[in-house]
Amino acid sequence: MNLKELNVVGKRIPKLDAAKKAMGRAEYIQDIKLPGMVYGKILYSRYAHANIVKMDTSRARALPGVLCVLTGDDVPKKMRMGFYKDNPPLKKGKVCSFRDEVAAVAAISPEIAKTALDMIEIQYEELPGIFDPEKAMEPDSPLVHDYHKTNVLNLPWKLHYGDVEKAEKESAFVVEERFTTQWVSHCCLGTSGAIALFDSSNNLTIYTNTQIPSLAQKDFLESLKAMGLENKRARVIKPIIGGGFGSKLDTYAYEHIAILLAHACRRPVKILFDRVEEFKAISTRQPTVIYIKQGCDKNGKLTFRDMRMVLDNGAYTSWGATTPSVMMMPITSLYRVENVRYEAKCVYTNNTYSQAMRGYGNPQATFAIESTIDMLAQKAGIDRVEMRRINRNQPGDLTPQGFKISSCGLSECIDAVEKEMDIKGPREKGVGFGIASLIHVGGGARIYKSDGCGAILKMDDYGKVDIFTGGTDMGQGLDNITAQIVAEELGLLVEDINVVHSDTDVCPWDVGAHASRSTFVAGNAALGAAKKVKAVILEEAAKTFGVSPDQIVMKARNIFVPGDAEKTMPIDKLLRKVHFSPQGKMLMADYFYDPDNENMGKDMKGNMSVTYAFGAHGVKVRVDEETGKVEVLDYVAAHDVGRAINPLLLEGQVYGGVVMGLGYALTEEVVTRDGKNMNPNFRDYKLFTAKDAVRIKAPVVETYDEYGPFGAKGIGEPGCVPTAPAVANAIYDAVGVRITTLPITPEKVLAALKEKKKRPLN
Amino acid sequence: MNLKELNVVGKRIPKLDAAKKAMGRAEYIQDIKLPGMVYGKILYSRYAHANIVKMDTSRARALPGVLCVLTGDDVPKKMRMGFYKDNPPLKKGKVCSFRDEVAAVAAISPEIAKTALDMIEIQYEELPGIFDPEKAMEPDSPLVHDYHKTNVLNLPWKLHYGDVEKAEKESAFVVEERFTTQWVSHCCLGTSGAIALFDSSNNLTIYTNTQIPSLAQKDFLESLKAMGLENKRARVIKPIIGGGFGSKLDTYAYEHIAILLAHACRRPVKILFDRVEEFKAISTRQPTVIYIKQGCDKNGKLTFRDMRMVLDNGAYTSWGATTPSVMMMPITSLYRVENVRYEAKCVYTNNTYSQAMRGYGNPQATFAIESTIDMLAQKAGIDRVEMRRINRNQPGDLTPQGFKISSCGLSECIDAVEKEMDIKGPREKGVGFGIASLIHVGGGARIYKSDGCGAILKMDDYGKVDIFTGGTDMGQGLDNITAQIVAEELGLLVEDINVVHSDTDVCPWDVGAHASRSTFVAGNAALGAAKKVKAVILEEAAKTFGVSPDQIVMKARNIFVPGDAEKTMPIDKLLRKVHFSPQGKMLMADYFYDPDNENMGKDMKGNMSVTYAFGAHGVKVRVDEETGKVEVLDYVAAHDVGRAINPLLLEGQVYGGVVMGLGYALTEEVVTRDGKNMNPNFRDYKLFTAKDAVRIKAPVVETYDEYGPFGAKGIGEPGCVPTAPAVANAIYDAVGVRITTLPITPEKVLAALKEKKKRPLN
Repeated sequence: MNLKELNVVGKRIPKLDAAKKAMGRAEYIQDIKLPGMVYGKILYSRYAHANIVKMDTSRARALPGVLCVLTGDDVPKKMRMGFYKDNPPLKKGKVCSFRDEVAAVAAISPEIAKTALDMIEIQYEELPGIFDPEKAMEPDSPLVHDYHKTNVLNLPWKLHYGDVEKAEKESAFVVEERFTTQWVSHCCLGTSGAIALFDSSNNLTIYTNTQIPSLAQKDFLESLKAMGLENKRARVIKPIIGGGFGSKLDTYAYEHIAILLAHACRRPVKILFDRVEEFKAISTRQPTVIYIKQGCDKNGKLTFRDMRMVLDNGAYTSWGATTPSVMMMPITSLYRVENVRYEAKCVYTNNTYSQAMRGYGNPQATFAIESTIDMLAQKAGIDRVEMRRINRNQPGDLTPQGFKISSCGLSECIDAVEKEMDIKGPREKGVGFGIASLIHVGGGARIYKSDGCGAILKMDDYGKVDIFTGGTDMGQGLDNITAQIVAEELGLLVEDINVVHSDTDVCPWDVGAHASRSTFVAGNAALGAAKKVKAVILEEAAKTFGVSPDQIVMKARNIFVPGDAEKTMPIDKLLRKVHFSPQGKMLMADYFYDPDNENMGKDMKGNMSVTYAFGAHGVKVRVDEETGKVEVLDYVAAHDVGRAINPLLLEGQVYGGVVMGLGYALTEEVVTRDGKNMNPNFRDYKLFTAKDAVRIKAPVVETYDEYGPFGAKGIGEPGCVPTAPAVANAIYDAVGVRITTLPITPEKVLAALKEKKKRPLN
Repeated sequence: MNLKELNVVGKRIPKLDAAKKAMGRAEYIQDIKLPGMVYGKILYSRYAHANIVKMDTSRARALPGVLCVLTGDDVPKKMRMGFYKDNPPLKKGKVCSFRDEVAAVAAISPEIAKTALDMIEIQYEELPGIFDPEKAMEPDSPLVHDYHKTNVLNLPWKLHYGDVEKAEKESAFVVEERFTTQWVSHCCLGTSGAIALFDSSNNLTIYTNTQIPSLAQKDFLESLKAMGLENKRARVIKPIIGGGFGSKLDTYAYEHIAILLAHACRRPVKILFDRVEEFKAISTRQPTVIYIKQGCDKNGKLTFRDMRMVLDNGAYTSWGATTPSVMMMPITSLYRVENVRYEAKCVYTNNTYSQAMRGYGNPQATFAIESTIDMLAQKAGIDRVEMRRINRNQPGDLTPQGFKISSCGLSECIDAVEKEMDIKGPREKGVGFGIASLIHVGGGARIYKSDGCGAILKMDDYGKVDIFTGGTDMGQGLDNITAQIVAEELGLLVEDINVVHSDTDVCPWDVGAHASRSTFVAGNAALGAAKKVKAVILEEAAKTFGVSPDQIVMKARNIFVPGDAEKTMPIDKLLRKVHFSPQGKMLMADYFYDPDNENMGKDMKGNMSVTYAFGAHGVKVRVDEETGKVEVLDYVAAHDVGRAINPLLLEGQVYGGVVMGLGYALTEEVVTRDGKNMNPNFRDYKLFTAKDAVRIKAPVVETYDEYGPFGAKGIGEPGCVPTAPAVANAIYDAVGVRITTLPITPEKVLAALKEKKKRPLN
């Protein structure tokens, strides 16, 4: 890693679109209006589980202003969504959850569309539902899908490395616990929406809120094919989106319905969710039931980890069913532990189905792991910070799952938490400290067949750069990161770089904004393209200056030979010289970066990421023993980020992650009753907001990863990964109760305190 | 030239945007509406030449709905337009023509803006004007610009090769004549307009009707710099435009005024011309006064050509003042002639200023040359077709100006005209035949420092291509040409190719859609990028098939080894294989093609174009001796096009060119009186329309130029080049009068017939 002085990378440059957003000039899907556009609305099921006996859409069709009404009968047989392709955009015959889409309308105004929905008459025959995943596994449980002989999905989430049973026998101390985690919503402030339109050749353009323009394009092409529109084009344009957090890692029924409606009425069709719809019909984080056992020897060294999970899959299978693939990462590789066993079952229920969400299963798994690490330390009589030091991951480690740990700053992160927070020191009554660590992918994650990202770069006669990146800025600031990397490499200023993204016609392929991969993968793609152009510039400058390329420096819009005052010129002047010469050239380059990581094998082994991110969080809480209310007093989130390309944005990611994690730990939950969402609004869904934000310190540990662009690793997700166990550990530290179900509401704390008082003192 | 069978190139594929245009879905500048957009209007001078004594804009400013009012006082000192930088977008102190912009308003509606214009009070002091360029050259003529000591511009339009005076003395026959040509308007059916807006960092985006996105960007950046906005970005987006024909080869005051208004009121500002404004404020074809003398020996071989021109420059200097650089081409190189002299003077007047227009001076020069060729043939007693054959250009010629004639089908074109039209045969009374030839640039034209064009190409997993071209489709069909070339090279269908153009953020640099260069230059750029990608595909296929790349064929979406039924697969399948392999790649390529042509030296020598286009037109007319009316009965336009990439579009170019040429010859004229446009509407300006169209045969002569993409040369302009002299020659053939001033109106023919009758028969 070249640690020479940098000029643009490492600087606290505010978000490039900040002014635009602050001035209300950013164009969200809400703002886009196309000529001739009409409005689509979706009718959802009235039952969690029911047969559709009869449907009458004639009154809706007759309403003036209605262009078309579609039902499950209008959906081509092969038009199916999700990881398991078990989800048609409009349901036919039977509904399996309250969010099942049963009809859709396009009309000249949203109001008319809504009125038309109310005029659709449907006769249902209610069926018994199943809402508990553990019960759904029982043989006599009602089947969510009759064609699927069992509610348990056939997925390969199982591993066993070493010998867990032997290790357990040989352990000095063992702890065992059951944990559960809840549904939470991403709560994107920009609600979901899409506009679909067809050109006269039946090529599709779709504006949609997505984190995965290229994979969404694939889904839409499959829908087109199912509709008989083979060999057509699908152009996906992502407008500015108000938050993603994983919610936009799959395509949704509303997008495919917009396509069907647009094709049926030959107009651009916009479907826009209101807040209630956003809560009810956007998939949540995957809820889990976790059984965990961990042991250590008498010195505190971890001997084994044995985990089993049941995941409520809901009625359909989105990518949420694949979160166990990422849960495996902390399970096998957070701390050194040789003997590991894990099995996860995803089970159909008549609940809402889940999706990806920041951390992708890692927060759930880490909640169980790090809670039990504290329990184990206590049982072994070892200080819990020391317990973590003893077992910490280190550079050069090869974990049981085959992860190659290149850079690793976990040790420094633990130190940083201790430095900022007096965990071992004295404390007031009712106040406690908690700590928890994390591992996460930091150099891509090969879940799909390609983990690559393309970039195309062109420079103009004025020293300005346009870079078309596959990477998706969804508010996290990838535009800045891309611009800073390119500006650094080419000796320009960040305002010289224009980042073009999120239009599949213009931008090269990318697997999507997930797995904290954008800075690393899209950053490396941009850097690769910049390096190619730089090589040409240096070569041309070398001719001009009569020196060798390696003597030349590009900095602050100038190109020069250091120490030779004669040999210097503005970069733009050189570019014009290169262009306006016989057989002149304009500088352009393309680069496709696919990290050298591995898909997991059948044994679930494989180096999923080129590098891994680490961190440790410390939290100080006060627990009110009268009310059970937990107050977060102080928070430290130390992360090994490789290199901070932009410390300001990095802190933003950490702050946001921690606040999201605190909501997960303490207040947030999608409350359901027999499959029905009971709190689809911000009054009843307790999101952590600005007024709840706590003081967060975010020490940055820079380990300069050899594979990262300028040494950087991913930081998008880690902020919310160890928050819940850190808080749970702090509560235990404060008042001696171990809460094992999220969120840790005052009611649960109070109940635990009551329970504790009943027990004899030990 | 590889003459193997082609699958896509050479096919009559309708315009890709035809359906969109026919369905009213094409978005012209008229259709674009941006959020918060307001409307600009321009106030023009009330005099051709006057001092501005006093201006009062207070009433206009006070009108509700007006956002700002600008005058010449608000224009930064260095904000100047045009080739000579003598034209501020708003004038101050003095006006020099009726189209001088004196004030501009932005308001919330076009109507309010118009009302505000009427409320601006200006006191003028009229000055004597000068409207005749020959008179303007006289020493005591009023000066258009006082700071310019003379009305004659200091331009280098002068050449003398061989020895004209000596050659004249040695000639057997000599003819001499004076010709004049008129102002004509491009009459684009889409009127001009622009929308300018600034982002919060003062970067400019401008939607504008332009043929030169990259050069317009340069002009706008200069304006930004003059406004104190240095180092900002200017993004130029060209919407679909309703015709260009050269009118959009320069930036106009309205564009710079839109920029000033947008900056002043921080809103998107749209300025849209109505038809009257389009006639009055869009620059015309350059009018000329031409003095010509030509001679030949007793065998009809041309001995010399001596020409002198006076060009009415109008009050300001646009690129029209550079048309003599292209006039030189037919003057020195149409037919073999060793001794050539030419001088052109561009002279300021208080008339409207002129611009580029299809042919760029060539129609004016060719009118004089080809009219006198007939006169000379008659004088020498040689058949005029034979006269042209005797002197025809031939492949391998090096012309006096240094043009290297690579391919040349002039001889075949003359043959084709003779074949289609019985020029030498018998005829009715009042009926005559005319013929005229042309030379034009066919392989770019190095007028600017670069004649290049960039292309970037990417392929997706489905065998679809996006190509970003610098080239500008302005209705001529460059999108088709680009798509056909790329589809041919990559074995795809034309619908697999998406051509992205006319957005400087996305598309690489190009010098613009002029000089009939787009098919040749942008075509070669696209072909270059396609070839790079093809090489990678063949290499990957070679690995897959276990053969060498040169054994592999790509055709109709498949890649295969001919004769080996095992070795074949769809191209998209191969692309996915390449992408979804370890260290996979997506296929992308860039290419910058700058033709190997030369800027003219001080002696005006230089091989301006890589190759030249030739053609011959034949026309049959009937002249009504009672009314003087000329009826075109039949038309043949034979062109050497190298190769017809798309014969359908090629014919469209020829038909359109001929009809435009016929209007130029017979009916069209911007009529002025003391600098004032007297016919700014389609009732009084006699455009040739569909009902006037005649039967045109367009035989295609394919010479397969070695430098052209698949052998193609340019054909955008030639169609209108020799039309006027062909018609004039036919009129002479029919009724024996030689009309030397365009347009050849019935009045002129009648006057000439009367004059002829007065003369004793000879």
